[in-house]
Amino acid sequence: MEKPYVLGIDMGGTNTKFGIVDARGNVINSSSIKTQLYTDINEYCDVLCAEMMKLVDAAGGIELVRGVGAGAPNGNYYTGNIEFAPNLPWKGIVPFAELIAERMHVPCRITNDANAAAMGEMTYGVAKGMKNFIMITLGTGVGSGIVIDGKVVYGHDGFAGELGHTKIERGESARLCGCGQKGCIEAYASANGVARTAKEWLAKTDRASLLRQLPAEEITSKDVFDAAMQGDDMAKEIFEYTGRLLGTKLADFVAFSAPEAIVLFGGLTKAGDILMEPVVKALNENVMPLWKNKIKVLFSTLKDSDAAILGASALVWDVDAQAPMSK
Amino acid sequence: MEKPYVLGIDMGGTNTKFGIVDARGNVINSSSIKTQLYTDINEYCDVLCAEMMKLVDAAGGIELVRGVGAGAPNGNYYTGNIEFAPNLPWKGIVPFAELIAERMHVPCRITNDANAAAMGEMTYGVAKGMKNFIMITLGTGVGSGIVIDGKVVYGHDGFAGELGHTKIERGESARLCGCGQKGCIEAYASANGVARTAKEWLAKTDRASLLRQLPAEEITSKDVFDAAMQGDDMAKEIFEYTGRLLGTKLADFVAFSAPEAIVLFGGLTKAGDILMEPVVKALNENVMPLWKNKIKVLFSTLKDSDAAILGASALVWDVDAQAPMSK
Repeated sequence: MEKPYVLGIDMGGTNTKFGIVDARGNVINSSSIKTQLYTDINEYCDVLCAEMMKLVDAAGGIELVRGVGAGAPNGNYYTGNIEFAPNLPWKGIVPFAELIAERMHVPCRITNDANAAAMGEMTYGVAKGMKNFIMITLGTGVGSGIVIDGKVVYGHDGFAGELGHTKIERGESARLCGCGQKGCIEAYASANGVARTAKEWLAKTDRASLLRQLPAEEITSKDVFDAAMQGDDMAKEIFEYTGRLLGTKLADFVAFSAPEAIVLFGGLTKAGDILMEPVVKALNENVMPLWKNKIKVLFSTLKDSDAAILGASALVWDVDAQAPMSK
Repeated sequence: MEKPYVLGIDMGGTNTKFGIVDARGNVINSSSIKTQLYTDINEYCDVLCAEMMKLVDAAGGIELVRGVGAGAPNGNYYTGNIEFAPNLPWKGIVPFAELIAERMHVPCRITNDANAAAMGEMTYGVAKGMKNFIMITLGTGVGSGIVIDGKVVYGHDGFAGELGHTKIERGESARLCGCGQKGCIEAYASANGVARTAKEWLAKTDRASLLRQLPAEEITSKDVFDAAMQGDDMAKEIFEYTGRLLGTKLADFVAFSAPEAIVLFGGLTKAGDILMEPVVKALNENVMPLWKNKIKVLFSTLKDSDAAILGASALVWDVDAQAPMSK
């Protein structure tokens, strides 16, 4: 009998979420652990696998599980390794697929978190039926999953689709990014980027803003959004600025793969129209005439938590896949 | 019997080159006409087809020709149309594949000129055997052909791979590009861009330079190269500046598709090391650590004239192709 379940892992810099998923894309049961609690990768895998086994046992046992799919920052689809992830506690190269497979006794396949989200979106979300789209994840950082002709692009080395680390600023004033480079769009259009813009603008001017009621160092993108919703001009302008930079960069991505749509996903998309409007405006101002007003920009329709787990699980269902599974 | 020949057309803003090609990639015979002489597309096609028929007749007649492949600016692989090409005499949408097919009585397939060059490079050039590479053509403008998993990327609408129109500058001082947008890399890293930089720098400063011996308006990229070869500091710096901007942009492209190599092609590559060195330096300064010194940057090994004709002809040999042929 075909095994009816797969496990999906969505590893983030803060939380690791995981769930058991059936072939129809229902997340039967899910849970999470704190990624940052475990500075030793072996300890992290021990706890993660023990927690996953609880879900597995409740669903009828490991015999019913076909494998594990994981979305992880800098996860390499070809090797099964997590390689030099700047936002994770483990440095260098971590053979994650192997570590999970040997603990769970089922095969494991990994990709990066944004590619997993793109697979989730293509299989169950707003990109269903699309063969060419780009998923941009706007969370703590900016990630991306690029789908061309119905397939996620992995490139020569398995690391394609790092659009958060394309450059929007050059020169002295460009912000330093977590990746070590300067001027990456991730340093501007992520949740962290929005908070950073707020702190910079508050320090640089003495303009009135509701944000001045908060300790500057603790300001988050949510605070900026809340202030904007209360009509705060500076907060609104911060989203305008963020959206404009992101939209300008999206125009570059359109010139690359001419997608049918760009799907925005992740925490920052909760800002809604005050982000979407400047994004769409800047996109259309910066694409070639042939693409003006032709590229759909959509918010993901999947719940944050489910998209990545579902997408990761889709790695296991995907029988045409190019990469070997770690067993 | 299998027909032994195909025709390849390389349409540029200035010249249209064409040749008759055998299955081994030998250009049996070739010729050219001036693109700009014909403001009426029908007249252009009449002359082009009459000239091609001379090659065909010399090779034994149209019965031996399988079809025509053409690389043309803004050529759409899916529709066979040339759509809104800024550097051609014909405006709007031109059903080029159909116009050629009805005159030659054999099927015709088209793509843009840079995609054709990428196919030529993959089939016969320095990218032979590579499954993931990006071809950048540095001629009058900047074009690109992106190969992922062994296939040229066409995208949702057939127009993917317009990397010359990604942005390197923003704001007031960004140069206007022929496409109508501002700040495109094409406005800096093309032959025209180099000449433009020279004119700007000469006008803006009173620095000594051999280039001042020439009428400013007539300066070409070749003049700048010749001056650099004679040790002119400003001319050398112009190539340094051009290469640095191009390399910075190439880093964005690496983040997109993680190619094994970037292949530079076209007139500007004759500059050699004085272009290549700053390109490679800026590329490695702007990619994520995982790609530093890992991406090959290569000059095309094909003759300019042959690559595009061969690549265009490969469109006809390519039996797995996704697009229908105009017959």
